Amino acid sequence: MKSSDFLISTVKEAPNDAQIISHQLMIRAGLISKLASGLYSYLPIGLKIIHKVEKIIREEMNKSKALELLMPVAQPAELWQESKRWEEYGPELLRFKDRHERDFCMGPTHEEVITNIAKQYLRSYKQLPINFYQIQTKFRDEIRPRFGVMRSREFIMKDAYSFHIDEKSLGETYQVMHQTYCNIFDRLGLDYRPVLADSGAIGGDSSHEFHVLAESGEDAICFSDGSSYAANIERAETLPLGKPHAPQQELEIAHTPGVKTIDDVCNLLKISPQKTIKTLIVDGTNDNLIALVLRGDHELNEVKAAKLEGVKNPLQMAEEGKVLKQLGCSFGSIGVVNLDIPIFVDYAAAHLSDFVCGANRDDDHYIGVNWGRDSKKIIASDLRNVVPGDPSPDGNGKIEIKRGVEVGHIFQLGTKYSDSMKANVIGEDGKAVNMNMGCYGIGVTRIIAASIEQNNDDRGIIFPQAIAPFELIIVPINYNKSSRVKELADQLYMDCVDQNIDVLIDDRKERPGIMFADSELLGIPHRLVISDTHADNGKIEYKSRVHPDKVEIDFNEAVSFIINKLD
Amino acid sequence: MKSSDFLISTVKEAPNDAQIISHQLMIRAGLISKLASGLYSYLPIGLKIIHKVEKIIREEMNKSKALELLMPVAQPAELWQESKRWEEYGPELLRFKDRHERDFCMGPTHEEVITNIAKQYLRSYKQLPINFYQIQTKFRDEIRPRFGVMRSREFIMKDAYSFHIDEKSLGETYQVMHQTYCNIFDRLGLDYRPVLADSGAIGGDSSHEFHVLAESGEDAICFSDGSSYAANIERAETLPLGKPHAPQQELEIAHTPGVKTIDDVCNLLKISPQKTIKTLIVDGTNDNLIALVLRGDHELNEVKAAKLEGVKNPLQMAEEGKVLKQLGCSFGSIGVVNLDIPIFVDYAAAHLSDFVCGANRDDDHYIGVNWGRDSKKIIASDLRNVVPGDPSPDGNGKIEIKRGVEVGHIFQLGTKYSDSMKANVIGEDGKAVNMNMGCYGIGVTRIIAASIEQNNDDRGIIFPQAIAPFELIIVPINYNKSSRVKELADQLYMDCVDQNIDVLIDDRKERPGIMFADSELLGIPHRLVISDTHADNGKIEYKSRVHPDKVEIDFNEAVSFIINKLD
Repeated sequence: MKSSDFLISTVKEAPNDAQIISHQLMIRAGLISKLASGLYSYLPIGLKIIHKVEKIIREEMNKSKALELLMPVAQPAELWQESKRWEEYGPELLRFKDRHERDFCMGPTHEEVITNIAKQYLRSYKQLPINFYQIQTKFRDEIRPRFGVMRSREFIMKDAYSFHIDEKSLGETYQVMHQTYCNIFDRLGLDYRPVLADSGAIGGDSSHEFHVLAESGEDAICFSDGSSYAANIERAETLPLGKPHAPQQELEIAHTPGVKTIDDVCNLLKISPQKTIKTLIVDGTNDNLIALVLRGDHELNEVKAAKLEGVKNPLQMAEEGKVLKQLGCSFGSIGVVNLDIPIFVDYAAAHLSDFVCGANRDDDHYIGVNWGRDSKKIIASDLRNVVPGDPSPDGNGKIEIKRGVEVGHIFQLGTKYSDSMKANVIGEDGKAVNMNMGCYGIGVTRIIAASIEQNNDDRGIIFPQAIAPFELIIVPINYNKSSRVKELADQLYMDCVDQNIDVLIDDRKERPGIMFADSELLGIPHRLVISDTHADNGKIEYKSRVHPDKVEIDFNEAVSFIINKLD
Repeated sequence: MKSSDFLISTVKEAPNDAQIISHQLMIRAGLISKLASGLYSYLPIGLKIIHKVEKIIREEMNKSKALELLMPVAQPAELWQESKRWEEYGPELLRFKDRHERDFCMGPTHEEVITNIAKQYLRSYKQLPINFYQIQTKFRDEIRPRFGVMRSREFIMKDAYSFHIDEKSLGETYQVMHQTYCNIFDRLGLDYRPVLADSGAIGGDSSHEFHVLAESGEDAICFSDGSSYAANIERAETLPLGKPHAPQQELEIAHTPGVKTIDDVCNLLKISPQKTIKTLIVDGTNDNLIALVLRGDHELNEVKAAKLEGVKNPLQMAEEGKVLKQLGCSFGSIGVVNLDIPIFVDYAAAHLSDFVCGANRDDDHYIGVNWGRDSKKIIASDLRNVVPGDPSPDGNGKIEIKRGVEVGHIFQLGTKYSDSMKANVIGEDGKAVNMNMGCYGIGVTRIIAASIEQNNDDRGIIFPQAIAPFELIIVPINYNKSSRVKELADQLYMDCVDQNIDVLIDDRKERPGIMFADSELLGIPHRLVISDTHADNGKIEYKSRVHPDKVEIDFNEAVSFIINKLD
């Protein structure tokens, strides 16, 4: 490609709303153009990258024997009513009416549509397993679209849905998809991790997220330093710590006027948060109150808490008025002594002895509190987010926490949709059986943002070779003035094209500084510079985007040099 | 591809709403699956065809140096308000509100969005001409979606938009696009015609439609039998026929009680419709009435009529009450004698002498009417649809009319959008100039339906080779019982795969009759059948989808035989 036939649409300044580096660089490099909040056009250079990502995904999905199809953006409400999601899904589901006042939505996902197709075209266990995928435009009406294409409203996803006669077959395809995703992200050249994720109703290891590691990532992911264990923060388990030490202190009241927070208690009583507990009150399934107890320095894990028996799911904090009425004190003063509601205590809190907690009345705390002696009916549970240094739940090593950007998610759905939508096949025994389903997503457009979050410097993007807009840029100096430079550059360009190198020659009438800056901003991995001086001694200058040093190489060996670099 | 790894989703019956053959066959062959009125999913075999169409379009568009980008489905109302189309576009524009109650539409076309992009990224005449295209999902809320993907609500289009410093440059790119479209439809293997189309405000030869010829086509297209002239029915011109013969009859009143229609007048007076005229009354731009006069057997061309000076555009028939009040009679009785409003008379009607028309009062007609003598102030114009046998407007040959399906449209927009949206660049003289624009559309999904309308028989689809779902199908008889057949079929299959033939081997446990019927329904151009009998004598059976005869060929020469056929 010649720059003069292309649109190099770099801009100097990123807009104010671009808070993260990938958003800033995608705008500055001219990959995307904002149309409206959360809506972006992909300019030629951005679309070129998307096509490279899509090609890799398509090749690996096809290799796994998944079948590509294409479902509509617009979906009728009726299907979503069958699955109950018309009511359950929040305002992120963009609903609209057509000219005949019929209800539709713009699909944020396609479980209903694919289940409806499976219901029509799959009749017998002999057709199973089967895995359908599409690469398609989705819409999610984010309340606050941000971070460019990282959290946009319209985006491209690869979503796949597999159908199975039983859970065993689902598990097998799930493993194939896990491997396929690894192959895809390997080929994309990303530093990523598959991590265990919350698996909803199915349980077990039936859900994994794939995260691109980047310090700026929205998500916390937890690794063991002694094993391959990895999970997202919602999922990473903590282990029971055994019985607490025997009590050393008597239970006493400490007067703590106006003190509501853990920090204030610690300051006043000169203790560390690790010697305190905090008691949160949530709604139970029978509109009753339930206490969740954590060590003072720990954070509640809402996903874990919502799965506890008798706790309302999704988790809902109790109303303060109701707490005041039933327990006689406000949120900041609740403690576990004489607390007559179900009490779930996190393993770390359950391991404490001689600790401090609220006294169930304002302006007082208990000190020297001990489980068993002072608070009897408790259930020790895994309630909190892991923290660095926690033992790995597989028993090997300690937890480390890194940041990541979620770019893929694989999930065993079981029969959730086939039950509600009555999608069955005839089994080997002649009886109808509702199909098991898996679903597997990759955020195509998000991958580009994530790869930029992971690979950039102060000069711009550093694209992995597989998804760089071009593999090589040729920058001729004085292309429009020196016929010798033009001739050599054109010859080199044609030689590269002949070798199927994805090459851009910058034949614009721009100053060298602008051409260099653009090539670095765009993240093109390899650069060759040709000038009259080089021509004089048969040389050409090579620079890799990732290394600061320039190298002079023989002009005649330039193509093989680049082929070698690309391999 | 093996059938066992694929989804052959043929069905026996087409649904009742499938009125045209392409709709019936696309459902029966399992190319598409209906989701809701005007919304279709593309099953794997249908999507495979779409991808082939898209590849050809993309290659030819890239060859023309157009740049691919991708714009969103959802578009903000503000842009459409700038171009005034938010008000002008009818209910086919699907409007919706997001969660913040802001107005959006689902794009039926992208002039506004691309003009907005051009405005941001094009600054100088040096960047022009430039041509952007996308292959993208569009939505048009048809009042009565029908004919499957031929007139669906969601569909895939290739739309391109070019930007120019002046009309001359626009004209040059327009010619390039005309040739590119011919290249695309040639490669798709379709029998098509580029025809002149109505060019709106720009005039001249600035709009062409590309029609796939098919008897079932919705559109009438007009050819000369003596030249290359071709135009759609809206556009095809008629020529002036010169002065009428001198009057032979006196003007008389004929009593015609209750007679309102041309047929009734002809029956009563024993004359042919060619000796009558009909007078239509439309609204003028000043809320006045205007008469349009046609020969009794001719049809009004509304596009032509709407362009007449003083006539409201789009054309609007006058209200009968207003006509009654001002002219003193109802629609069926209007005539040209003593009619004191502007009168446009079609060339053919203007050529009549001694004709019959209404008497401007009910129950009477005039006979022996002659222009000049009985009706003076008339303007002879081109007002009607051409009919077969009309002289070709280029003066060579006579008009023939065929049916076609519109699959492409190229159009010179001029500065319509750049004026209203202020999209300018700095010209060579340093002054800002609003860019000229062209737009160029191809209905990607519609092409598939059109190609089926053109190529089918009672056994199913006959796909052109370039867009057939597979180039070759191998049908082994007793694949699952005869190890010899299996071995030979597998070997042949692998040899074809090695030669990059797009081959399907039907390894399902189906009866031969079903496999043959499916291969014909799907329109696969070439078929090889291998059985034990064939194996005995080293032969294999070949059948082309377009010829009824089967041929036995040597097994060892099968691959080169097929390669030969494919070339």
